[in-house]
Amino acid sequence: MKHCLIVISCLFAFLNLYAQQPILKKDKWHWGGTEKQDTSAGYTQALRAGNTVYISGTVALTINEDGIINVYKGLEKSLAAFGLTFKNVVKENLYTTDIEAMKTFNYVRKRFYKGDFPAATWVQITRLYMPEAKLEIELIAQFSSKEN
Amino acid sequence: MKHCLIVISCLFAFLNLYAQQPILKKDKWHWGGTEKQDTSAGYTQALRAGNTVYISGTVALTINEDGIINVYKGLEKSLAAFGLTFKNVVKENLYTTDIEAMKTFNYVRKRFYKGDFPAATWVQITRLYMPEAKLEIELIAQFSSKEN
Amino acid sequence: MKHCLIVISCLFAFLNLYAQQPILKKDKWHWGGTEKQDTSAGYTQALRAGNTVYISGTVALTINEDGIINVYKGLEKSLAAFGLTFKNVVKENLYTTDIEAMKTFNYVRKRFYKGDFPAATWVQITRLYMPEAKLEIELIAQFSSKEN
Repeated sequence: MKHCLIVISCLFAFLNLYAQQPILKKDKWHWGGTEKQDTSAGYTQALRAGNTVYISGTVALTINEDGIINVYKGLEKSLAAFGLTFKNVVKENLYTTDIEAMKTFNYVRKRFYKGDFPAATWVQITRLYMPEAKLEIELIAQFSSKEN
Repeated sequence: MKHCLIVISCLFAFLNLYAQQPILKKDKWHWGGTEKQDTSAGYTQALRAGNTVYISGTVALTINEDGIINVYKGLEKSLAAFGLTFKNVVKENLYTTDIEAMKTFNYVRKRFYKGDFPAATWVQITRLYMPEAKLEIELIAQFSSKEN
Repeated sequence: MKHCLIVISCLFAFLNLYAQQPILKKDKWHWGGTEKQDTSAGYTQALRAGNTVYISGTVALTINEDGIINVYKGLEKSLAAFGLTFKNVVKENLYTTDIEAMKTFNYVRKRFYKGDFPAATWVQITRLYMPEAKLEIELIAQFSSKEN
């Protein structure tokens, strides 16, 4: 009887150690189509968990007006998929192979924020996922905790 | 009458599709002055939404004692603007043009954490926003959920 | 009496200004041993605050099957320390000195996600903390808010 209790206690301790947390609810959004992710590269464009939306880097092949407009229209679409706008963006990380060029066209980027800017960090790197990409911007957006 | 109902239903469905989320409450802090952001570069130094504070990359032009002290005093100020300290930092991302130099002066950085370190990632990149910058450090800090 | 009230009011205003927030509860996990952080480099491998876990960059010295398996087994261990799995990963940031090589071995990385991918951004940088490191992957993972 005593042994039985010890065995049961050990079993519970063991189960507790390896207990998995309940499954996290994630909402995903991906470019067009019905798939909510790119199973070839292995990522999803935007993922919501709790009140936070993580948006994967969105790219431009050329750093000019059109390229930057495309990136931000893409980000806008990712946000809109969750009913959000640039007003919900709290953090922006900008990776580019040419910061100087990006500075020249920053006015295009700034338009999308309509005077309400997030925290942001820019770094110049040597290349991006696509060899021809010159700019990649990722965002963190937040839901208001009230409506959740 | 039936048509009217269909039209109203469609309208509601349409409105629902495009419904925006309630406006997110954001608290911003920026270096000196009354402006809470840099409308020229288009960013804010620190932004709180919910329990999280995102602190933009803070830079040093030279990787030496003074440069690193300046960076961390700046970060300390950003945190203090929200009543926080380095104890609230959960993540640090360090971007530098010279990791080897930064390692030499890591003892200066470490002092600010007073033995309580965050998760951290260091990468060496080719340049930062300011052409002469050698070091840029961004943080994520967290409020205790109790006091919110 | 009046003066006394003014002094007290000022004192309160002053105290309020410098009031610190309540101490944040953080759970840390670090590789082996009893120390919950690396006090030499000044970081912790994984840190939980609230519902979020920040996992520091985990490295490979060679970009091949074994190297990538090691990185993801390390990340798996960091997650498991909190009772989490790759299903809880919401964001992945991949830094490498050779994106082309990493693409070749992406199939190894993808296995660990078992078809449920996070938001992700890949950038090629010039070097990592360890001079010989070729790959570093950091994660953000999330607890389901129910069980907290």
